[in-house]
Amino acid sequence: MVLHHTIPHVLVFNLVSDLPAYRPDLAAYLLPQLVRDVPPESLFLCVVDPGVGGERSAVAALIDDRWYVGPDNGLLSIALRRAGQVECWRVDWRPSKLSSSFHGRDLFAPVAAHIALEGRVIGTPMTPGELVGADWSDDCHKVVYGDLYGNLCIGTRAEAVDRRSTIKAGNQTLGFSRTFCEVPVGTAFWYENAFGLIELAVNQGRADCALGLEVGDSITLIN
Amino acid sequence: MVLHHTIPHVLVFNLVSDLPAYRPDLAAYLLPQLVRDVPPESLFLCVVDPGVGGERSAVAALIDDRWYVGPDNGLLSIALRRAGQVECWRVDWRPSKLSSSFHGRDLFAPVAAHIALEGRVIGTPMTPGELVGADWSDDCHKVVYGDLYGNLCIGTRAEAVDRRSTIKAGNQTLGFSRTFCEVPVGTAFWYENAFGLIELAVNQGRADCALGLEVGDSITLIN
Amino acid sequence: MVLHHTIPHVLVFNLVSDLPAYRPDLAAYLLPQLVRDVPPESLFLCVVDPGVGGERSAVAALIDDRWYVGPDNGLLSIALRRAGQVECWRVDWRPSKLSSSFHGRDLFAPVAAHIALEGRVIGTPMTPGELVGADWSDDCHKVVYGDLYGNLCIGTRAEAVDRRSTIKAGNQTLGFSRTFCEVPVGTAFWYENAFGLIELAVNQGRADCALGLEVGDSITLIN
Repeated sequence: MVLHHTIPHVLVFNLVSDLPAYRPDLAAYLLPQLVRDVPPESLFLCVVDPGVGGERSAVAALIDDRWYVGPDNGLLSIALRRAGQVECWRVDWRPSKLSSSFHGRDLFAPVAAHIALEGRVIGTPMTPGELVGADWSDDCHKVVYGDLYGNLCIGTRAEAVDRRSTIKAGNQTLGFSRTFCEVPVGTAFWYENAFGLIELAVNQGRADCALGLEVGDSITLIN
Repeated sequence: MVLHHTIPHVLVFNLVSDLPAYRPDLAAYLLPQLVRDVPPESLFLCVVDPGVGGERSAVAALIDDRWYVGPDNGLLSIALRRAGQVECWRVDWRPSKLSSSFHGRDLFAPVAAHIALEGRVIGTPMTPGELVGADWSDDCHKVVYGDLYGNLCIGTRAEAVDRRSTIKAGNQTLGFSRTFCEVPVGTAFWYENAFGLIELAVNQGRADCALGLEVGDSITLIN
Repeated sequence: MVLHHTIPHVLVFNLVSDLPAYRPDLAAYLLPQLVRDVPPESLFLCVVDPGVGGERSAVAALIDDRWYVGPDNGLLSIALRRAGQVECWRVDWRPSKLSSSFHGRDLFAPVAAHIALEGRVIGTPMTPGELVGADWSDDCHKVVYGDLYGNLCIGTRAEAVDRRSTIKAGNQTLGFSRTFCEVPVGTAFWYENAFGLIELAVNQGRADCALGLEVGDSITLIN
């Protein structure tokens, strides 16, 4: 038994609160940012799955010293794209009892548990280019997440965006502010959120209501 | 100290997300299904309690090698009914400080903790037939739970139900489908959910809205 | 390394479910009651922060053998006031990477982790009188929290209030009842909740709707 190969950290992302339901095409841009500061030798079990109970493959990936387990529907594609070192496997194992609607519990979780215990996956090696989402864009100028307070997270990394840029969102044009308390109460602005993405917000208000936007809607970046 | 008698797993069911509030008569049919795959030597602390602060008894039960602690209001009755081996106790112990509204914290949790530590309960043996709910029906053709997505779980075990059966629910008659992605988007159907119960659902839609049903409403099974 | 100085219990209060958002002036009256029965040698990491990303100080306090970490915006003021023994520090340490909107993660959590590991804080001693909220009233006759069921918690300790007192709340005058099941279904009343505060409730109904009150609204105690 090679203990140093086992995984000390296992994180389960809660679909409801952390990633947008039904939308791996949006969740893909949130995932690498959410896990950015998590230590190496962690494992992420990620399930966002519009085709509940469908036939998409299970994949496992070792991305820069951290494991990911999830469906092959694009969810892992941007994390793979931005990585240095990547290994991927298609997992063909199926449990003896597979429910028709809860593959997170019945399929993905046992695969994750096996990796956490053994430090390796039983699967068929594949190249990242074979996975769904390999041809998706580097950033996504859409609302990928709306939080409890109505803040709207955009799938665009903020670092490379000039602070003098404005964002056309709904019927408004938003300027940059470093943080909430630097604009008047009720004013909409954009800022770099704690995960490194552009976020639209209103100081002590709801950006979703003020701008009339929801998850999946597009915004325009004006340089 | 007999360590092998202690309980390795303690699960607290979260009333808000896992069981229907105020309704032990419905929750009773969900509980045995929710815990179906949990390992032996576990303990379940379950509180659904419409008579907040009232005088119903506390009970502890050892059901097929797993412990349950909760109020004597029917919540445990179906789990007891479907079991092989059962032992029950009425717990008369009361804490020195008992709030008038949070018996889950003040009464049931210490009882559960005591069992987890000692592997036994201090109480008065009773027969399952003495508990509230001993005369309830084997299945319950009602909505016992509505999830975040509007799916409606019925208190009826799916295994024994012919897949050619239809279900009259609200103003619609629903056919069986194995899973979501096998019906067109927007279509209502019934299926066997991941806990073995009948569930009404709409592919990428809300069954609660489409059918106009909520927790406690009845459905009709047409064989 | 002095192991017995480390902290065995670390609790993170979840802003969303446990304390009122944006309102340290209300949360301050809830906090000491929520933690009342938590064992000594615990640490509480508490963040309710209307000035997201602003310049308020971080403080750490050792209050009767339990640690608190949070912003200097009044949140800890009532816990400090009601304590026997108190020590406070202003924490000037800042992480190398501080996001503009998630100081709970970037600043307060590392400070809490350091205390939990080392059993002491690196900071500048201050007197409780220097903290924001030192001049706030002893109790707060306002709704400080509304729970999932519509019950309204008041920032007033119930112990000292005569049970013959009535409470004027919205357009109703409420009498005392020991608990829910002692008034008819649908009747509004006040009682001492499980944290020792006055709470307005309706048996199997919603006090927030029945009384037309929300977090921050005032009530009147009529002796």
